[in-house]
Amino acid sequence: MTAVQAFLDRVHDLARLGSIQGHLGWDRETLMPRKGAAARSDVLAWLAAESHRRMVAEEFGTLLESVRDEAQHDPDLAATVREMTRRRDRAVLLPEAFVSEFARTRSLAQGAWQDARAASDFPAFAPHLETLLSMTKERVRLLGHEGPTYDALLDEYEIGSTMADYDPMFAELKAHLVPLLARITESSAAQHLPALPEGARFPVADQIAFCERVSRTMGFDFEAGRMDASAHPFSAGLWPGDTRFTTRFDETDPFSCLYAVMHETGHALYEQGLPDAFQRTPRGEAISLGVHESQSRFWENQIGRTEAFWSVVGPWFRDAFPDAPALDAAAMNLIANKVEPGFIRVEADEVTYNLHIMLRYEIEKQMFEGNLTIAELPQVWNTMMEEWFGLEVKEDRLGCLQDIHWSMGAFGYFPTYTLGNLYAAQLLEAMSGDLGDMDTLVRGGDWSAPLTWLKSRIHERGSLLLPPALIEEATGSPPTAAAFLRYIEGKYSRLYGL
Amino acid sequence: MTAVQAFLDRVHDLARLGSIQGHLGWDRETLMPRKGAAARSDVLAWLAAESHRRMVAEEFGTLLESVRDEAQHDPDLAATVREMTRRRDRAVLLPEAFVSEFARTRSLAQGAWQDARAASDFPAFAPHLETLLSMTKERVRLLGHEGPTYDALLDEYEIGSTMADYDPMFAELKAHLVPLLARITESSAAQHLPALPEGARFPVADQIAFCERVSRTMGFDFEAGRMDASAHPFSAGLWPGDTRFTTRFDETDPFSCLYAVMHETGHALYEQGLPDAFQRTPRGEAISLGVHESQSRFWENQIGRTEAFWSVVGPWFRDAFPDAPALDAAAMNLIANKVEPGFIRVEADEVTYNLHIMLRYEIEKQMFEGNLTIAELPQVWNTMMEEWFGLEVKEDRLGCLQDIHWSMGAFGYFPTYTLGNLYAAQLLEAMSGDLGDMDTLVRGGDWSAPLTWLKSRIHERGSLLLPPALIEEATGSPPTAAAFLRYIEGKYSRLYGL
Repeated sequence: MTAVQAFLDRVHDLARLGSIQGHLGWDRETLMPRKGAAARSDVLAWLAAESHRRMVAEEFGTLLESVRDEAQHDPDLAATVREMTRRRDRAVLLPEAFVSEFARTRSLAQGAWQDARAASDFPAFAPHLETLLSMTKERVRLLGHEGPTYDALLDEYEIGSTMADYDPMFAELKAHLVPLLARITESSAAQHLPALPEGARFPVADQIAFCERVSRTMGFDFEAGRMDASAHPFSAGLWPGDTRFTTRFDETDPFSCLYAVMHETGHALYEQGLPDAFQRTPRGEAISLGVHESQSRFWENQIGRTEAFWSVVGPWFRDAFPDAPALDAAAMNLIANKVEPGFIRVEADEVTYNLHIMLRYEIEKQMFEGNLTIAELPQVWNTMMEEWFGLEVKEDRLGCLQDIHWSMGAFGYFPTYTLGNLYAAQLLEAMSGDLGDMDTLVRGGDWSAPLTWLKSRIHERGSLLLPPALIEEATGSPPTAAAFLRYIEGKYSRLYGL
Repeated sequence: MTAVQAFLDRVHDLARLGSIQGHLGWDRETLMPRKGAAARSDVLAWLAAESHRRMVAEEFGTLLESVRDEAQHDPDLAATVREMTRRRDRAVLLPEAFVSEFARTRSLAQGAWQDARAASDFPAFAPHLETLLSMTKERVRLLGHEGPTYDALLDEYEIGSTMADYDPMFAELKAHLVPLLARITESSAAQHLPALPEGARFPVADQIAFCERVSRTMGFDFEAGRMDASAHPFSAGLWPGDTRFTTRFDETDPFSCLYAVMHETGHALYEQGLPDAFQRTPRGEAISLGVHESQSRFWENQIGRTEAFWSVVGPWFRDAFPDAPALDAAAMNLIANKVEPGFIRVEADEVTYNLHIMLRYEIEKQMFEGNLTIAELPQVWNTMMEEWFGLEVKEDRLGCLQDIHWSMGAFGYFPTYTLGNLYAAQLLEAMSGDLGDMDTLVRGGDWSAPLTWLKSRIHERGSLLLPPALIEEATGSPPTAAAFLRYIEGKYSRLYGL
């Protein structure tokens, strides 16, 4: 056996352990009965320790070193070596007991969050969050990071990103989005938006049928994946040939489920489009959360929230919900693009969405770089919601309990959503240059061209390139906020007649 | 750390790996998209090799030896040591590559069986069965078993059982059941059985609600488990606090789902009743398939197929299916106990059920001790069905493709079902001695007394005693067919006025 084969064998083993952890995590969010929580946390902690042990094993370190030369002439192998090095360099700094305990803590916290969110009971979740926060700080300390703790976390979710990148980006966005929001809410169009009738019901079974049709038309292969329900929609490329996403249902609002499905299908198409030839290696994995989010936001917003889209799916909507009023594509699209400060990030329009992210970013900065305590979190959140959105949060389930991320110990994750929005707009511009007018294309009802474009430029590249290089290769320019600002100003000026 | 702690740590690790395999197997049967089959088989093969490596590791062997003395004074530890010794003694005779390949073959065969059964396409499944058969023979050869191959397989599913035990048992049963069947089918009562009206529909959602109510009343804790759907109903105690069973639905026949649910709930109650104190060790596991089957058959038949049962659930049935005709408990019970030679084992009445088992037993004997080839299997099956049941099998999905077991490589498993029937009848007699008239008790609607009785005498004993000793301890007599024959003759003579 060659050194490369021996190295890849061990990489495959780590990927299998990762898939098992992913699968048991997916099951916990979708199916697990509540009394299964302790055993699930036990085995996830055990698996984390098992993975850690294999990662830090000297033998694996030696194998990793032994393939470096060969990787210089093989860019695919180089991507895998680069990623394994990054992961191993971190892992060797963490004691196994810490890794295992952190996994157990995260697993238990997610169950506690589900219950706390359902009951809108922040104090029930607070001790878990407290532990996660202090373990996260301890983790950064163990990693020997120099500089601000929060930078270390940001880098973890989007390699190379720091507050020095995000602060000006968010400032630029805020400078444009806040006035745009004001112009929209003061516009006369905003006073006369169409709406679905009060009290209309959209049965879950019909929502499932409608949304599966949309997902299938986007290109999701249901023979290689599933759609299920969970408290917080998510997507997971669990195994080669088995990618799963979830949604949730509100019988009074069919848009909530539809756009969750389009969003998660966007993620899932990335997973289904990853190159088979590099299964179970980093080369064959998605490169980053920011890029992942560009895929979900592209389908959700740039395809899904257009009049062209509604001209195709409007008839399907009326098939699924024969009792719903017959609104035309323009009206449905206006409803789908209603700009309004709201409580829930995942249901936010594109103008306010990034303000939700900024709010979380500012709070996380205060958690790690300031003095914000967990006990103060609800009040700080609610004060910011009042100041930024003019909304009074009366229940924490509509406030600081709404997102799953902190219960996963994922601090520093949120800003990747905004990166995804920026990347998506830049991809849309480049795609239009190649494929022609996107509205015409979407209206045609065959959406395979954008998927094929994304597949060759993003999906199949896996982790070959780091995010900025990948975006530049795909679009011809390094990532900036310019395309997003053009997109959002143009789209909403047209929609609201500004 | 003491030697016992070190030993149990490794036992726990093996149990975790077993639970992971069980969970991924459960998911394959219930949820996995078809294109996930290759990766699932890959990881199950990998996990089998991983377990095998830990089981045969010299260090584990040394630990196992080091706790033998202590086990002499600790019956709980002794049960775990006894079981681990039995498993390890076998494992060390099998090469890791064989274990892994066998796991992969089984996993792929189960997918192939599902498709072949749906399409009634035996030739599509035959190559898989061929491989499983030859690998099973090879496995017995590797284990160095002396004597007939089939005895080695029988022993695997019920420790100590051989053809020398089963041949006379089946002969005794056949001598009673064949004449009983003839008396029943020739009786005038058999000509005038009530029936549900032709063409009546029982919607799946209503069947779910009705069956969950029955399962809950039996004592299944839905906070510590789930009910799902699969091609072949099964039950699996996946994790501490997480026991899952499945059923299947036929909208024209609500009895099919109901009795599958009662059967699988019986298994699941055993799993939920296992002692928490011995989690993740053999001491805390169910002792055998035969005993497991006694629990499922007890609830399905001895509780579920009684007039007393229908006097309780009849009103629930009418709640769930308001369009169904209002039949009284006696009529519903006659329908539920209709004796009739049929194609499908899991839907068979109690009189013909064991004939289905005998048919499989005879065929397996011919596979391992005679010259029966896989190609001849459908014809041999169909000829026996004609001779024994007077039925012509026109589709293999109603014949030799109906059961999942062979696709799991589980040859020698079927006879444990008959053992279960015998144990169940013996348990019922003993239970009646303790609790009084069972009909009165069941009619009262509170079924916690039989569950409590079974919990203390069977469930909580885990693997402390081998099956014959466990049954003798629970009932006061060693296991025989006598109680079953008394039960079946008495019940069906009454029902059919013989």
